[in-house]
Amino acid sequence: MAEAPSRGLADVVAASTALSDIDGRAGLLFYRGYDIGELASSASFEEVAFLLQRGHAPDKAELAEYQAELVTGRPLGELVEADLPGIARRQRPMEALRSLVSLGSADDADAASTAADANLRKAARLTAQQPVLITAYQAARTGSELPSADPGLGVAANFLFQLTGTQPEPRAAEIFDTCLVLHADHTMNASTFAARVCAATLADMHSAVVAALGTLSGPLHGGANEQVMRSLEAIREVGGDPLAATTSVVSERLAAGEKIMGFGHRVYKTEDPRASHLRRMSAELAEDSGDDTYYQMSRRMEEVVLTEKGLFPNVDFFAATVYHYLGIPTDLFTPVFSASRMAGWTAHVIEQHADNRLIRPDSEYIGDRGLRWVPLDAR
Amino acid sequence: MAEAPSRGLADVVAASTALSDIDGRAGLLFYRGYDIGELASSASFEEVAFLLQRGHAPDKAELAEYQAELVTGRPLGELVEADLPGIARRQRPMEALRSLVSLGSADDADAASTAADANLRKAARLTAQQPVLITAYQAARTGSELPSADPGLGVAANFLFQLTGTQPEPRAAEIFDTCLVLHADHTMNASTFAARVCAATLADMHSAVVAALGTLSGPLHGGANEQVMRSLEAIREVGGDPLAATTSVVSERLAAGEKIMGFGHRVYKTEDPRASHLRRMSAELAEDSGDDTYYQMSRRMEEVVLTEKGLFPNVDFFAATVYHYLGIPTDLFTPVFSASRMAGWTAHVIEQHADNRLIRPDSEYIGDRGLRWVPLDAR
Repeated sequence: MAEAPSRGLADVVAASTALSDIDGRAGLLFYRGYDIGELASSASFEEVAFLLQRGHAPDKAELAEYQAELVTGRPLGELVEADLPGIARRQRPMEALRSLVSLGSADDADAASTAADANLRKAARLTAQQPVLITAYQAARTGSELPSADPGLGVAANFLFQLTGTQPEPRAAEIFDTCLVLHADHTMNASTFAARVCAATLADMHSAVVAALGTLSGPLHGGANEQVMRSLEAIREVGGDPLAATTSVVSERLAAGEKIMGFGHRVYKTEDPRASHLRRMSAELAEDSGDDTYYQMSRRMEEVVLTEKGLFPNVDFFAATVYHYLGIPTDLFTPVFSASRMAGWTAHVIEQHADNRLIRPDSEYIGDRGLRWVPLDAR
Repeated sequence: MAEAPSRGLADVVAASTALSDIDGRAGLLFYRGYDIGELASSASFEEVAFLLQRGHAPDKAELAEYQAELVTGRPLGELVEADLPGIARRQRPMEALRSLVSLGSADDADAASTAADANLRKAARLTAQQPVLITAYQAARTGSELPSADPGLGVAANFLFQLTGTQPEPRAAEIFDTCLVLHADHTMNASTFAARVCAATLADMHSAVVAALGTLSGPLHGGANEQVMRSLEAIREVGGDPLAATTSVVSERLAAGEKIMGFGHRVYKTEDPRASHLRRMSAELAEDSGDDTYYQMSRRMEEVVLTEKGLFPNVDFFAATVYHYLGIPTDLFTPVFSASRMAGWTAHVIEQHADNRLIRPDSEYIGDRGLRWVPLDAR
């Protein structure tokens, strides 16, 4: 017989993974046994993607080869190129990425395979293409030309280059690279879990990643970073002293029982370790920008929520201002999250396919019983 | 603390639902409290879709209004129409449907909303469009013209009409309608569960349904009906007496420890009630066709597997020959499954959004611990 239901599967173990681990009480996150703090300060996104997808820290030769694979994996394919202009005109960013990644399988020679080697190649290509898709979408919807990818730039720097058309400041590229490292994987978050549920029917990697993209688009998941920025923008538009406005708006919302986006997490009982890194980077970028208002407002918001609710900022909270200071349009924040998480999603599909079992839970029936169907003529 | 892991969440209750219920021991399936046998013999797919999505058996006026909504919901929209030819040339059927449904949100005025009324409208439109998408795809890839939908025909008859270009025999349409009724919902199957995991982030209905389509595409889920037909075709090509060939091929495969597609189910411990109806319809269509070879081979396969393994046929097994006798191309079997299950998926999204909680399970970490990251220069 089935056990008592657990709303939202909280605390139910749905899968085993060697990819990431969280110590929610201590506020620690590990990728394959490495502390996120060490990775944030000394690993590149490419090293982390390799670590997740291929199981170990790459040596110099492995990393060079993987970087080359990512560079050659950037082209989006004919079908995506053909349909991109119409999609960019008609679909919102996450909706568009869902469509574009789904179309992308047409030009991937390994699309239909779930073999281990095919999965490794697809994981690299999907990781390489996701940031390019975002910049291509942005260029198409704004009617500007997408700069050709620069084979001399890594994932982070090339994204900022293709987004803006100018070579990024080295420190901006470094900070964005760290953002990609911080968002790459996070155990059984909803989008990763959706990818695994999909992959567990032995559906192919594109299907699993498209499921993950749709799942990430929800405001309770990837959509949160965008909403944090929109809250800050709305408060600033109130006028007057932005810090005083922050205090009063947040206090009012909390008093009204509203949720403040970017705070609290089902897993962490203390500060999300990723938030600490993002706060530091937000401070640095704010200072460099010459206008630290959004950063100061974020700090104020953090104080009010901690004092009144005891909730800590999560990964989405300071990611918002970091992305803002990096010049990323607000409605591309969730897509940027997806560019990083693609490394983790694909690694989870590899792991699921390597030791697969269908994920098919039970449900508790709470409806009517024993009804007799009356044919239409008698209804 | 998390509980011990359950591989594949077997017997773990992941959600509450009033949509369908299974008694696996007795071999019973209910939609909202109505036995599937009663529905198969006296409800239309439209009545069942209404029942699932709107909560009760429609009266005559409600049904007429819903049928009209399905008819007006059939047009696929500009973006889908524009991209369909390229997709039909370049993507396999389930891959194409994943892309097409994702594109379809562009022309759905309610796409971004998760409000209850928007969800009801979208559920009807997605249910109306899915069979049209399949026939439009088929016409596009074969270079034939898609017959305009016939507003006088219901979902089942119109599908056969648009697929073949000729008005279907009334009995064929009736049998196909029953197939749609039988496949419409089935508790927390993997694709439905994927839809709910996605919807639980408050992602929109198109995202959830796209996740479900990708999940259904896997050979362990929706792909099974196609594989059943391919097995039958392969055995028949062996030559000689097809029944003797069936016995020997199936026995050999079982002896080699191979899985025979279309048998056994994680939930049913006896015959799947849907299989009984499909067997009967397969027999009828086989007789009418004048060549009952595939039906007889199926019966033989069933006998061998039951005798040697004690496994019963599941919903996919006799669906294969039914679809074959109805003239549906083998690689459209899983898409046809999706045309029916769309009614259930959308109903589950409605139910999830009406009483939502994020679905975010735990995972068990099985990898390395306590590693120190050595910077690249020292590796």
